[in-house]
Amino acid sequence: MSNFVEEKHDDFSYRYKITERLYSDKSEFQEIEVYNTTGFGKMLLNDGYVMVTDRDEFVYHDMIAHVPLFVHPNPKNVLVVGGGDGGTAREVLRHSSVESCVMVEIDPLVIEACREHIPQTSSVFNHEKLELLVQDGVKYVKTTDKKFDVVLVDSTEPFGPAAELFNKSFYDDVFRVLTDDGIVVSQGESCFYDLHRQKSLMGIISQVFPLTTIYNYHNLTYPGGLWSFTFASKGLNPIKDFDTTRVLNSGLEFQYYNPDMHKGSFALPTFQRNEIKEFIKGL
Amino acid sequence: MSNFVEEKHDDFSYRYKITERLYSDKSEFQEIEVYNTTGFGKMLLNDGYVMVTDRDEFVYHDMIAHVPLFVHPNPKNVLVVGGGDGGTAREVLRHSSVESCVMVEIDPLVIEACREHIPQTSSVFNHEKLELLVQDGVKYVKTTDKKFDVVLVDSTEPFGPAAELFNKSFYDDVFRVLTDDGIVVSQGESCFYDLHRQKSLMGIISQVFPLTTIYNYHNLTYPGGLWSFTFASKGLNPIKDFDTTRVLNSGLEFQYYNPDMHKGSFALPTFQRNEIKEFIKGL
Repeated sequence: MSNFVEEKHDDFSYRYKITERLYSDKSEFQEIEVYNTTGFGKMLLNDGYVMVTDRDEFVYHDMIAHVPLFVHPNPKNVLVVGGGDGGTAREVLRHSSVESCVMVEIDPLVIEACREHIPQTSSVFNHEKLELLVQDGVKYVKTTDKKFDVVLVDSTEPFGPAAELFNKSFYDDVFRVLTDDGIVVSQGESCFYDLHRQKSLMGIISQVFPLTTIYNYHNLTYPGGLWSFTFASKGLNPIKDFDTTRVLNSGLEFQYYNPDMHKGSFALPTFQRNEIKEFIKGL
Repeated sequence: MSNFVEEKHDDFSYRYKITERLYSDKSEFQEIEVYNTTGFGKMLLNDGYVMVTDRDEFVYHDMIAHVPLFVHPNPKNVLVVGGGDGGTAREVLRHSSVESCVMVEIDPLVIEACREHIPQTSSVFNHEKLELLVQDGVKYVKTTDKKFDVVLVDSTEPFGPAAELFNKSFYDDVFRVLTDDGIVVSQGESCFYDLHRQKSLMGIISQVFPLTTIYNYHNLTYPGGLWSFTFASKGLNPIKDFDTTRVLNSGLEFQYYNPDMHKGSFALPTFQRNEIKEFIKGL
């Protein structure tokens, strides 16, 4: 079998050569597919959008997890909202300081598909420090009594099941569940194609947190390649409170992340900085 | 009319919606096409590879030109090898210190196609400080008596008409035509898809120049998004000899480039740095 998977944009499409379809099902939230590709290994799609591939998932997962976890001086309790493939939790649990990682994924079929077909990310599901909850992350942060040092919002686009993750009320709840030196990092869309969405999200987060900014990373299989994470905290500064010796002393090795990339990722193209600079504050 | 332009890779393809084909001809070197697209404005393709689009050419041209021109303390004479669309020369000639820009493009049909259909980059062809030569850049650097402060190798891939631009003998000649504080920056391929080519080019350049390194930029329409430029000099350091006040005092405005991006672009993903670190020297 040889075919293509196509993304859904008006002006362009990306196609990938596939050798087989490993999984296809429709949950109450979305359509879920897993393909084997010739160039990218296993590939997960939600509603036709590429979420994760074996080949480049390290970029996204390095950057959503290690940037905040090396800024916070002693992260013990981490919450992942979404991230049903497991890659984010996998990187979180490589940090020896972390005692507990709660992962709240709304869609059981994403977990099922990844558990069966994408072990590269889902092997973390068996980790003893992982508490995997299949429920709505929005309701979880509204009701939980737990406190977290770091919250990672590993969401899809701001429509469909993730729509409520782009609302102010969600971030009010995230603020509440964070400790006094807490940090939240969120999937922040494309600065090339979705700058309006990025601006909207930054506008919301900056209403809630005293320190807000954004940093970039480059994913092969996301449109345009250049995408962003929002960074917000109750005070910790992603550059000034970042101690490179902690990275070196951790003994951890990374395919993408390193101290230079940590600092360099906060350098923003002028067109992006100009659009969102009103929401960058507290630095 | 509504159709797609497709790129040529084994495992994936990028397609763009086009409204019309504006130009199509075959020179002795390559096939040249210009399309009007719905999402990217005018688009130039050489042998089926996307070279330039109205929408994202600012990224490539900002980064090939302004990084070396703000490291060199007083660039007066600049050579552009290739760059037939004109975008690189356009950015070079925004620097008030530059007295002369020689541009050597091998293919007259690239110049013709861009002059007729891509004014956003080709308008520079009428600039009084531009000397536009239609000849082989390899032969030019072998024979010219002129000296240059900065050489920019704005080439296509290392096959077809640009193949000789990836040879050591070419860089020996570039070294010869550079002044004592000269800098050469070259199109350095994709670190995701063509890391072997990037490594090969770095290997060649590092045999010739005492200081060699690499920096990254992100182009929407190049595969994977993350691409590189090699930086080599007779001694000038791209970070230590970079004075941010020169950027601010220039009065120039940029869509992509700024002092933070200048410095941040030299931060390399770990997988890339590990592959080429033996060729990074003199810093």
